[in-house]
Amino acid sequence: MSKRVRLKISYDGTSYHGWQIQEGVVTVEGVLTEAIREATGEDITVIGASRTDAGVHAMGNIAVFDTDSRIPADKMFMVLNKLLPDDIIVVSSDEVSSDWHPRKQECRKTYEYRIYMSPVRMPLKRLYAHYTYNELNIEEMNRAAGAFRGEHDFTAFCAAGSQATSFTRTIYDCSVRKEGNEAVISVTGNGFLYNMVRIISGTLMDVGLCRKSADQISGIIDSLDRRQAGPTLPACGLTLIGYEYDE
Amino acid sequence: MSKRVRLKISYDGTSYHGWQIQEGVVTVEGVLTEAIREATGEDITVIGASRTDAGVHAMGNIAVFDTDSRIPADKMFMVLNKLLPDDIIVVSSDEVSSDWHPRKQECRKTYEYRIYMSPVRMPLKRLYAHYTYNELNIEEMNRAAGAFRGEHDFTAFCAAGSQATSFTRTIYDCSVRKEGNEAVISVTGNGFLYNMVRIISGTLMDVGLCRKSADQISGIIDSLDRRQAGPTLPACGLTLIGYEYDE
Repeated sequence: MSKRVRLKISYDGTSYHGWQIQEGVVTVEGVLTEAIREATGEDITVIGASRTDAGVHAMGNIAVFDTDSRIPADKMFMVLNKLLPDDIIVVSSDEVSSDWHPRKQECRKTYEYRIYMSPVRMPLKRLYAHYTYNELNIEEMNRAAGAFRGEHDFTAFCAAGSQATSFTRTIYDCSVRKEGNEAVISVTGNGFLYNMVRIISGTLMDVGLCRKSADQISGIIDSLDRRQAGPTLPACGLTLIGYEYDE
Repeated sequence: MSKRVRLKISYDGTSYHGWQIQEGVVTVEGVLTEAIREATGEDITVIGASRTDAGVHAMGNIAVFDTDSRIPADKMFMVLNKLLPDDIIVVSSDEVSSDWHPRKQECRKTYEYRIYMSPVRMPLKRLYAHYTYNELNIEEMNRAAGAFRGEHDFTAFCAAGSQATSFTRTIYDCSVRKEGNEAVISVTGNGFLYNMVRIISGTLMDVGLCRKSADQISGIIDSLDRRQAGPTLPACGLTLIGYEYDE
Protein backbone atom coordinates (compact mmCIF):
# COMPACT_ATOMS: atom_id res chain seq x y z
CA MET A 1 0.00 0.00 0.00
CA SER A 2 1.68 3.17 -1.19
CA LYS A 3 1.91 6.18 1.10
CA ARG A 4 3.23 9.71 0.70
CA VAL A 5 5.92 10.61 3.24
CA ARG A 6 6.73 14.22 4.05
CA LEU A 7 10.18 15.22 5.30
CA LYS A 8 11.39 18.37 7.02
CA ILE A 9 15.05 18.81 6.06
CA SER A 10 17.84 20.93 7.47
CA TYR A 11 21.14 21.39 5.64
CA ASP A 12 24.33 23.37 5.41
CA GLY A 13 24.36 24.44 1.76
CA THR A 14 28.10 25.25 1.72
CA SER A 15 29.20 22.08 -0.08
CA TYR A 16 26.20 21.67 -2.40
CA HIS A 17 25.24 22.96 -5.82
CA GLY A 18 21.83 23.83 -4.46
CA TRP A 19 18.78 21.68 -3.93
CA GLN A 20 17.84 20.45 -7.37
CA ILE A 21 19.24 17.24 -8.88
CA GLN A 22 21.66 18.00 -11.70
CA GLU A 23 23.95 15.78 -13.70
CA GLY A 24 27.58 15.79 -12.57
CA VAL A 25 27.32 17.92 -9.41
CA VAL A 26 26.45 17.12 -5.80
CA THR A 27 23.06 18.51 -4.74
CA VAL A 28 20.93 18.15 -1.61
CA GLU A 29 18.07 16.54 -3.51
CA GLY A 30 20.53 14.13 -5.14
CA VAL A 31 22.05 13.00 -1.85
CA LEU A 32 18.62 12.77 -0.19
CA THR A 33 17.19 10.74 -3.09
CA GLU A 34 20.07 8.27 -2.86
CA ALA A 35 19.51 7.86 0.89
CA ILE A 36 15.77 7.22 0.44
CA ARG A 37 16.45 4.71 -2.34
CA GLU A 38 18.88 2.89 -0.07
CA ALA A 39 16.44 2.92 2.86
CA THR A 40 13.40 1.76 0.87
CA GLY A 41 15.01 -0.28 -1.89
CA GLU A 42 12.73 1.59 -4.29
CA ASP A 43 13.41 3.85 -7.25
CA ILE A 44 11.64 6.81 -5.64
CA THR A 45 11.52 10.45 -6.82
CA VAL A 46 11.56 13.38 -4.41
CA ILE A 47 9.38 16.50 -4.77
CA GLY A 48 10.91 19.45 -2.92
CA ALA A 49 9.16 22.58 -1.68
CA SER A 50 12.02 25.00 -2.27
CA ARG A 51 14.79 24.67 -4.86
CA THR A 52 17.37 26.59 -2.88
CA ASP A 53 20.37 27.95 -4.80
CA ALA A 54 23.97 26.80 -4.45
CA GLY A 55 25.33 27.79 -1.03
CA VAL A 56 21.94 28.65 0.51
CA HIS A 57 21.16 26.91 3.82
CA ALA A 58 17.93 25.50 5.21
CA MET A 59 16.55 24.86 8.67
CA GLY A 60 13.28 23.47 7.35
CA ASN A 61 12.91 22.71 3.66
CA ILE A 62 10.08 20.28 2.86
CA ALA A 63 10.00 17.29 0.51
CA VAL A 64 7.68 14.37 -0.19
CA PHE A 65 8.03 10.98 -1.86
CA ASP A 66 5.75 7.98 -2.44
CA THR A 67 6.78 4.59 -1.13
CA ASP A 68 5.52 1.06 -0.45
CA SER A 69 8.13 0.67 2.27
CA ARG A 70 7.05 -0.82 5.59
CA ILE A 71 9.11 1.76 7.48
CA PRO A 72 6.52 3.85 9.40
CA ALA A 73 6.36 7.42 8.07
CA ASP A 74 7.10 8.90 11.49
CA LYS A 75 10.23 6.72 11.88
CA MET A 76 11.54 7.44 8.37
CA PHE A 77 13.66 10.40 9.54
CA MET A 78 15.69 8.19 11.89
CA VAL A 79 16.43 5.63 9.19
CA LEU A 80 17.47 8.34 6.72
CA ASN A 81 19.68 10.15 9.22
CA LYS A 82 21.84 7.03 9.51
CA LEU A 83 22.47 7.21 5.77
CA LEU A 84 22.90 10.97 5.32
CA PRO A 85 26.13 12.98 5.69
CA ASP A 86 26.70 15.36 8.62
CA ASP A 87 25.55 18.42 6.72
CA ILE A 88 22.06 17.14 5.83
CA ILE A 89 19.54 16.09 8.50
CA VAL A 90 15.90 15.07 8.30
CA VAL A 91 14.36 16.85 11.28
CA SER A 92 11.04 15.00 11.19
CA SER A 93 8.81 12.89 8.95
CA ASP A 94 5.09 12.18 8.71
CA GLU A 95 2.50 10.79 6.33
CA VAL A 96 0.40 13.13 4.18
CA SER A 97 -2.44 12.42 1.76
CA SER A 98 -1.42 11.21 -1.69
CA ASP A 99 -2.38 14.51 -3.34
CA TRP A 100 -0.43 16.72 -0.93
CA HIS A 101 2.15 18.64 -2.99
CA PRO A 102 4.71 20.86 -1.25
CA ARG A 103 4.63 23.55 -3.94
CA LYS A 104 0.86 23.60 -4.48
CA GLN A 105 -0.36 24.15 -0.92
CA GLU A 106 -1.11 27.54 0.56
CA CYS A 107 1.79 28.35 2.83
CA ARG A 108 3.77 30.90 4.76
CA LYS A 109 7.48 30.59 4.04
CA THR A 110 10.20 32.32 6.07
CA TYR A 111 13.75 33.22 5.09
CA GLU A 112 16.46 34.92 7.12
CA TYR A 113 19.41 36.81 5.71
CA ARG A 114 22.37 37.49 8.03
CA ILE A 115 24.94 40.26 7.63
CA TYR A 116 27.91 40.21 9.99
CA MET A 117 29.30 43.66 10.88
CA SER A 118 32.89 43.83 12.09
CA PRO A 119 36.11 45.78 11.44
CA VAL A 120 37.60 42.53 10.04
CA ARG A 121 36.19 39.34 8.57
CA MET A 122 35.41 36.69 11.18
CA PRO A 123 36.33 33.12 10.14
CA LEU A 124 33.69 31.61 12.44
CA LYS A 125 30.94 33.59 10.67
CA ARG A 126 32.06 33.28 7.05
CA LEU A 127 29.91 30.28 6.05
CA TYR A 128 26.59 31.55 7.41
CA ALA A 129 26.61 35.34 7.07
CA HIS A 130 27.51 38.02 4.54
CA TYR A 131 30.26 40.32 5.77
CA THR A 132 30.51 44.09 5.97
CA TYR A 133 33.03 46.27 7.80
CA ASN A 134 30.34 48.96 7.99
CA GLU A 135 28.06 49.48 10.95
CA LEU A 136 24.59 49.26 9.41
CA ASN A 137 21.71 51.41 10.64
CA ILE A 138 19.44 48.60 11.79
CA GLU A 139 16.62 50.87 12.92
CA GLU A 140 16.38 52.50 9.50
CA MET A 141 16.60 49.09 7.79
CA ASN A 142 13.72 47.84 9.93
CA ARG A 143 11.66 50.90 9.03
CA ALA A 144 12.38 50.28 5.34
CA ALA A 145 11.46 46.60 5.70
CA GLY A 146 7.90 47.56 6.57
CA ALA A 147 7.35 48.80 3.00
CA PHE A 148 7.67 45.26 1.63
CA ARG A 149 4.65 44.03 3.60
CA GLY A 150 1.45 43.36 1.68
CA GLU A 151 0.66 42.23 -1.86
CA HIS A 152 2.94 43.75 -4.50
CA ASP A 153 4.26 43.15 -7.98
CA PHE A 154 7.90 42.31 -7.15
CA THR A 155 9.30 42.55 -10.69
CA ALA A 156 11.95 45.00 -9.40
CA PHE A 157 13.13 42.32 -6.96
CA CYS A 158 13.43 39.40 -9.37
CA ALA A 159 16.64 38.29 -11.07
CA ALA A 160 16.73 37.76 -14.82
CA GLY A 161 16.07 34.16 -15.84
CA SER A 162 12.95 33.71 -13.74
CA GLN A 163 10.32 31.41 -15.18
CA ALA A 164 7.56 33.03 -13.13
CA THR A 165 4.33 33.90 -14.96
CA SER A 166 3.09 36.21 -12.21
CA PHE A 167 5.34 38.56 -10.27
CA THR A 168 2.79 39.31 -7.57
CA ARG A 169 3.55 37.94 -4.11
CA THR A 170 2.24 38.62 -0.63
CA ILE A 171 4.74 39.45 2.12
CA TYR A 172 3.22 38.80 5.55
CA ASP A 173 6.14 40.08 7.51
CA CYS A 174 9.50 41.73 6.85
CA SER A 175 11.68 43.02 9.66
CA VAL A 176 15.30 43.59 10.64
CA ARG A 177 16.77 42.92 14.07
CA LYS A 178 20.24 42.92 15.61
CA GLU A 179 21.69 39.74 17.10
CA GLY A 180 25.15 40.31 18.52
CA ASN A 181 27.14 41.77 15.60
CA GLU A 182 24.68 40.52 13.02
CA ALA A 183 21.87 42.27 11.18
CA VAL A 184 19.17 39.63 10.66
CA ILE A 185 16.63 40.29 7.92
CA SER A 186 13.54 38.11 8.30
CA VAL A 187 10.97 37.80 5.48
CA THR A 188 7.78 35.73 5.51
CA GLY A 189 5.66 35.44 2.39
CA ASN A 190 3.40 33.15 0.37
CA GLY A 191 6.19 32.65 -2.15
CA PHE A 192 9.29 34.33 -3.55
CA LEU A 193 10.63 35.12 -7.02
CA TYR A 194 14.09 34.08 -8.16
CA ASN A 195 16.70 35.72 -5.84
CA MET A 196 13.95 37.90 -4.34
CA VAL A 197 15.10 37.64 -0.71
CA ARG A 198 18.73 38.28 -1.65
CA ILE A 199 17.69 41.40 -3.63
CA ILE A 200 15.40 42.62 -0.81
CA SER A 201 18.37 42.11 1.54
CA GLY A 202 20.72 44.01 -0.78
CA THR A 203 18.21 46.86 -0.94
CA LEU A 204 17.83 46.94 2.85
CA MET A 205 21.62 46.85 3.19
CA ASP A 206 21.77 49.94 0.94
CA VAL A 207 19.39 51.60 3.42
CA GLY A 208 21.61 50.50 6.32
CA LEU A 209 24.56 52.12 4.52
CA CYS A 210 22.56 55.34 3.90
CA ARG A 211 22.79 54.78 0.14
CA LYS A 212 19.01 54.67 -0.01
CA SER A 213 16.40 56.02 2.39
CA ALA A 214 13.60 53.97 3.93
CA ASP A 215 11.10 56.27 2.21
CA GLN A 216 12.33 55.22 -1.25
CA ILE A 217 11.35 51.55 -0.92
CA SER A 218 7.71 51.90 -1.99
CA GLY A 219 8.80 53.84 -5.09
CA ILE A 220 11.36 51.16 -5.96
CA ILE A 221 8.68 48.44 -5.70
CA ASP A 222 6.31 50.50 -7.88
CA SER A 223 9.01 51.14 -10.50
CA LEU A 224 9.00 47.43 -11.51
CA ASP A 225 12.61 48.15 -12.49
CA ARG A 226 15.32 45.76 -11.27
CA ARG A 227 17.94 48.50 -11.60
CA GLN A 228 16.23 50.62 -8.94
CA ALA A 229 16.65 47.90 -6.28
CA GLY A 230 19.91 47.01 -4.50
CA PRO A 231 22.42 44.28 -5.32
CA THR A 232 21.81 40.54 -4.99
CA LEU A 233 23.67 39.59 -1.81
CA PRO A 234 25.73 36.34 -1.71
CA ALA A 235 24.10 32.96 -1.07
CA CYS A 236 25.96 32.14 2.17
CA GLY A 237 23.96 34.66 4.23
CA LEU A 238 20.60 33.14 3.29
CA THR A 239 18.78 30.43 5.27
CA LEU A 240 15.34 29.02 4.52
CA ILE A 241 13.89 28.91 8.02
CA GLY A 242 10.76 26.98 7.21
CA TYR A 243 7.19 26.52 6.07
CA GLU A 244 3.82 26.79 7.72
CA TYR A 245 1.09 25.10 5.73
CA ASP A 246 -2.65 25.58 6.14
CA GLU A 247 -3.66 21.96 6.66
CA MET B 1 66.15 47.75 12.91
CA SER B 2 64.40 44.65 14.19
CA LYS B 3 61.03 44.93 15.86
CA ARG B 4 58.70 42.45 17.55
CA VAL B 5 55.22 42.41 16.00
CA ARG B 6 52.24 41.03 17.92
CA LEU B 7 49.24 39.58 16.08
CA LYS B 8 45.73 38.84 17.28
CA ILE B 9 44.46 35.91 15.22
CA SER B 10 41.00 34.47 14.63
CA TYR B 11 40.48 31.10 12.94
CA ASP B 12 38.07 28.32 12.21
CA GLY B 13 39.94 25.24 13.44
CA THR B 14 37.80 22.76 11.47
CA SER B 15 40.34 22.16 8.69
CA TYR B 16 43.53 22.36 10.77
CA HIS B 17 45.58 19.92 12.82
CA GLY B 18 45.70 22.46 15.59
CA TRP B 19 47.96 25.46 16.06
CA GLN B 20 51.46 24.04 16.30
CA ILE B 21 53.66 23.46 13.25
CA GLN B 22 54.05 19.77 12.51
CA GLU B 23 55.63 17.94 9.62
CA GLY B 24 53.18 16.66 7.00
CA VAL B 25 49.95 18.22 8.27
CA VAL B 26 48.33 21.63 7.80
CA THR B 27 48.36 23.75 10.98
CA VAL B 28 47.38 27.34 11.76
CA GLU B 29 50.93 28.26 12.82
CA GLY B 30 52.27 26.67 9.64
CA VAL B 31 49.96 28.63 7.33
CA LEU B 32 50.53 31.86 9.30
CA THR B 33 54.33 31.42 9.22
CA GLU B 34 54.24 30.97 5.44
CA ALA B 35 52.17 34.14 5.03
CA ILE B 36 54.54 36.19 7.20
CA ARG B 37 57.58 34.84 5.32
CA GLU B 38 55.94 35.82 2.05
CA ALA B 39 55.03 39.31 3.34
CA THR B 40 58.44 40.07 4.87
CA GLY B 41 60.78 38.02 2.67
CA GLU B 42 62.39 36.82 5.90
CA ASP B 43 62.81 33.39 7.44
CA ILE B 44 60.83 34.32 10.57
CA THR B 45 59.62 32.08 13.40
CA VAL B 46 56.30 32.59 15.15
CA ILE B 47 55.77 32.29 18.93
CA GLY B 48 52.14 31.57 19.72
CA ALA B 49 50.30 32.15 23.00
CA SER B 50 48.03 29.12 22.85
CA ARG B 51 48.72 25.84 21.07
CA THR B 52 45.09 25.01 20.39
CA ASP B 53 44.27 21.38 19.57
CA ALA B 54 43.03 20.05 16.24
CA GLY B 55 39.51 21.32 15.55
CA VAL B 56 39.52 24.00 18.27
CA HIS B 57 38.59 27.52 17.13
CA ALA B 58 39.91 30.93 18.14
CA MET B 59 38.55 34.46 18.16
CA GLY B 60 41.74 35.94 19.59
CA ASN B 61 44.86 33.80 19.80
CA ILE B 62 48.08 35.82 20.11
CA ALA B 63 51.42 35.41 18.35
CA VAL B 64 54.62 37.40 17.94
CA PHE B 65 57.54 37.39 15.49
CA ASP B 66 60.68 39.49 14.99
CA THR B 67 61.23 41.23 11.70
CA ASP B 68 63.36 43.86 9.95
CA SER B 69 60.52 44.48 7.51
CA ARG B 70 59.58 48.10 6.72
CA ILE B 71 55.88 47.23 6.91
CA PRO B 72 54.57 49.22 9.91
CA ALA B 73 53.52 46.90 12.75
CA ASP B 74 50.01 48.33 12.85
CA LYS B 75 49.55 47.73 9.10
CA MET B 76 50.94 44.19 9.18
CA PHE B 77 47.50 42.62 9.68
CA MET B 78 46.21 44.06 6.41
CA VAL B 79 49.18 42.75 4.44
CA LEU B 80 48.85 39.28 5.99
CA ASN B 81 45.09 39.08 5.43
CA LYS B 82 45.68 39.35 1.67
CA LEU B 83 47.85 36.22 1.88
CA LEU B 84 45.82 34.13 4.32
CA PRO B 85 42.96 31.74 3.50
CA ASP B 86 39.33 32.54 4.43
CA ASP B 87 39.42 30.57 7.67
CA ILE B 88 42.35 32.45 9.25
CA ILE B 89 42.26 36.22 9.86
CA VAL B 90 44.66 38.55 11.65
CA VAL B 91 42.31 40.83 13.58
CA SER B 92 44.94 43.41 14.55
CA SER B 93 48.70 43.92 14.87
CA ASP B 94 50.96 46.14 16.94
CA GLU B 95 54.58 46.48 18.06
CA VAL B 96 55.68 45.18 21.46
CA SER B 97 59.03 45.33 23.23
CA SER B 98 61.60 42.76 22.12
CA ASP B 99 61.30 40.78 25.36
CA TRP B 100 57.50 40.53 25.29
CA HIS B 101 56.64 36.80 25.16
CA PRO B 102 53.02 35.67 24.77
CA ARG B 103 53.37 32.69 27.12
CA LYS B 104 55.45 34.44 29.79
CA GLN B 105 53.25 37.46 30.55
CA GLU B 106 50.64 37.57 33.28
CA CYS B 107 47.31 37.20 31.55
CA ARG B 108 43.63 36.42 31.77
CA LYS B 109 42.61 33.93 29.09
CA THR B 110 38.99 33.15 28.20
CA TYR B 111 37.54 30.06 26.54
CA GLU B 112 33.93 29.29 25.63
CA TYR B 113 32.49 25.83 25.14
CA ARG B 114 29.16 25.54 23.28
CA ILE B 115 26.69 22.67 23.56
CA TYR B 116 23.74 22.68 21.18
CA MET B 117 20.56 21.14 22.56
CA SER B 118 17.98 19.91 20.07
CA PRO B 119 15.85 16.81 19.35
CA VAL B 120 17.97 16.29 16.19
CA ARG B 121 21.43 17.34 15.08
CA MET B 122 21.50 20.73 13.36
CA PRO B 123 23.80 20.91 10.32
CA LEU B 124 24.30 24.68 10.74
CA LYS B 125 25.66 24.17 14.27
CA ARG B 126 27.79 21.07 13.77
CA LEU B 127 31.15 22.79 13.23
CA TYR B 128 31.01 25.13 16.23
CA ALA B 129 29.09 23.32 18.98
CA HIS B 130 28.91 19.91 20.62
CA TYR B 131 25.49 18.30 20.22
CA THR B 132 23.11 16.76 22.71
CA TYR B 133 19.47 15.75 22.30
CA ASN B 134 19.02 16.32 26.04
CA GLU B 135 17.75 19.53 27.57
CA LEU B 136 20.52 20.48 30.01
CA ASN B 137 19.76 22.10 33.36
CA ILE B 138 21.61 25.37 32.75
CA GLU B 139 20.83 26.85 36.16
CA GLU B 140 22.36 23.87 37.95
CA MET B 141 25.37 23.91 35.59
CA ASN B 142 25.93 27.57 36.37
CA ARG B 143 25.76 26.86 40.10
CA ALA B 144 28.31 24.05 39.66
CA ALA B 145 30.57 26.33 37.60
CA GLY B 146 31.07 28.59 40.63
CA ALA B 147 33.05 25.83 42.36
CA PHE B 148 35.86 26.12 39.80
CA ARG B 149 36.59 29.74 40.72
CA GLY B 150 39.73 30.43 42.70
CA GLU B 151 43.16 28.82 42.91
CA HIS B 152 43.06 25.02 42.78
CA ASP B 153 45.19 22.03 41.91
CA PHE B 154 43.44 20.90 38.72
CA THR B 155 45.08 17.47 38.40
CA ALA B 156 41.59 15.90 38.17
CA PHE B 157 40.91 18.08 35.11
CA CYS B 158 44.09 17.37 33.15
CA ALA B 159 44.40 14.79 30.38
CA ALA B 160 47.23 12.25 30.44
CA GLY B 161 50.28 13.36 28.47
CA SER B 162 50.51 16.82 30.00
CA GLN B 163 54.01 18.23 30.33
CA ALA B 164 52.96 20.61 33.11
CA THR B 165 55.19 20.76 36.18
CA SER B 166 52.57 22.50 38.33
CA PHE B 167 48.87 21.65 38.20
CA THR B 168 47.76 24.73 40.13
CA ARG B 169 45.83 27.33 38.15
CA THR B 170 43.64 30.28 39.07
CA ILE B 171 40.15 30.49 37.58
CA TYR B 172 38.88 34.07 37.69
CA ASP B 173 35.46 33.30 36.34
CA CYS B 174 33.44 30.26 35.32
CA SER B 175 29.78 30.50 34.36
CA VAL B 176 27.15 28.93 32.14
CA ARG B 177 24.50 30.83 30.19
CA LYS B 178 21.87 29.97 27.62
CA GLU B 179 21.99 31.50 24.14
CA GLY B 180 19.12 30.32 21.97
CA ASN B 181 19.37 26.52 22.06
CA GLU B 182 22.98 26.57 23.20
CA ALA B 183 24.51 26.13 26.64
CA VAL B 184 27.59 28.36 26.66
CA ILE B 185 30.26 27.58 29.25
CA SER B 186 32.66 30.48 29.76
CA VAL B 187 35.93 30.05 31.68
CA THR B 188 38.55 32.72 32.39
CA GLY B 189 41.83 31.79 34.04
CA ASN B 190 45.53 32.57 34.22
CA GLY B 191 46.27 29.39 32.28
CA PHE B 192 44.87 25.94 31.56
CA LEU B 193 46.18 22.39 31.68
CA TYR B 194 45.97 20.02 28.71
CA ASN B 195 42.27 19.52 27.80
CA MET B 196 41.24 21.28 31.02
CA VAL B 197 38.39 23.34 29.56
CA ARG B 198 37.01 20.36 27.66
CA ILE B 199 37.05 18.25 30.87
CA ILE B 200 35.49 21.06 32.94
CA SER B 201 32.81 21.28 30.22
CA GLY B 202 32.24 17.51 30.29
CA THR B 203 31.87 17.65 34.07
CA LEU B 204 29.42 20.55 33.87
CA MET B 205 27.50 18.68 31.16
CA ASP B 206 27.22 15.73 33.58
CA VAL B 207 25.66 18.17 36.05
CA GLY B 208 23.29 19.46 33.35
CA LEU B 209 22.25 15.82 32.72
CA CYS B 210 21.77 15.20 36.49
CA ARG B 211 24.55 12.60 36.44
CA LYS B 212 26.45 14.69 38.98
CA SER B 213 25.23 17.33 41.40
CA ALA B 214 26.62 20.84 41.66
CA ASP B 215 27.63 20.10 45.25
CA GLN B 216 30.04 17.36 44.12
CA ILE B 217 32.35 19.64 42.13
CA SER B 218 34.55 20.79 45.00
CA GLY B 219 35.08 17.18 46.08
CA ILE B 220 36.02 16.18 42.52
CA ILE B 221 38.60 18.99 42.37
CA ASP B 222 40.03 17.95 45.76
CA SER B 223 40.22 14.26 44.73
CA LEU B 224 43.01 15.07 42.20
CA ASP B 225 41.62 12.02 40.37
CA ARG B 226 40.91 12.36 36.65
CA ARG B 227 38.38 9.49 36.86
CA GLN B 228 36.14 11.50 39.19
CA ALA B 229 35.67 14.28 36.61
CA GLY B 230 33.47 14.07 33.51
CA PRO B 231 34.42 13.19 29.92
CA THR B 232 36.60 15.29 27.62
CA LEU B 233 34.10 16.91 25.23
CA PRO B 234 34.94 17.12 21.49
CA ALA B 235 37.17 19.88 20.10
CA CYS B 236 34.56 21.49 17.80
CA GLY B 237 32.62 23.07 20.70
CA LEU B 238 35.67 24.93 22.04
CA THR B 239 36.69 28.47 21.09
CA LEU B 240 39.58 30.46 22.53
CA ILE B 241 37.89 33.83 22.97
CA GLY B 242 40.98 35.83 23.84
CA TYR B 243 43.67 37.21 26.10
CA GLU B 244 43.91 40.18 28.40
CA TYR B 245 47.50 41.01 29.34
CA ASP B 246 48.63 43.23 32.18
CA GLU B 247 50.79 45.66 30.22
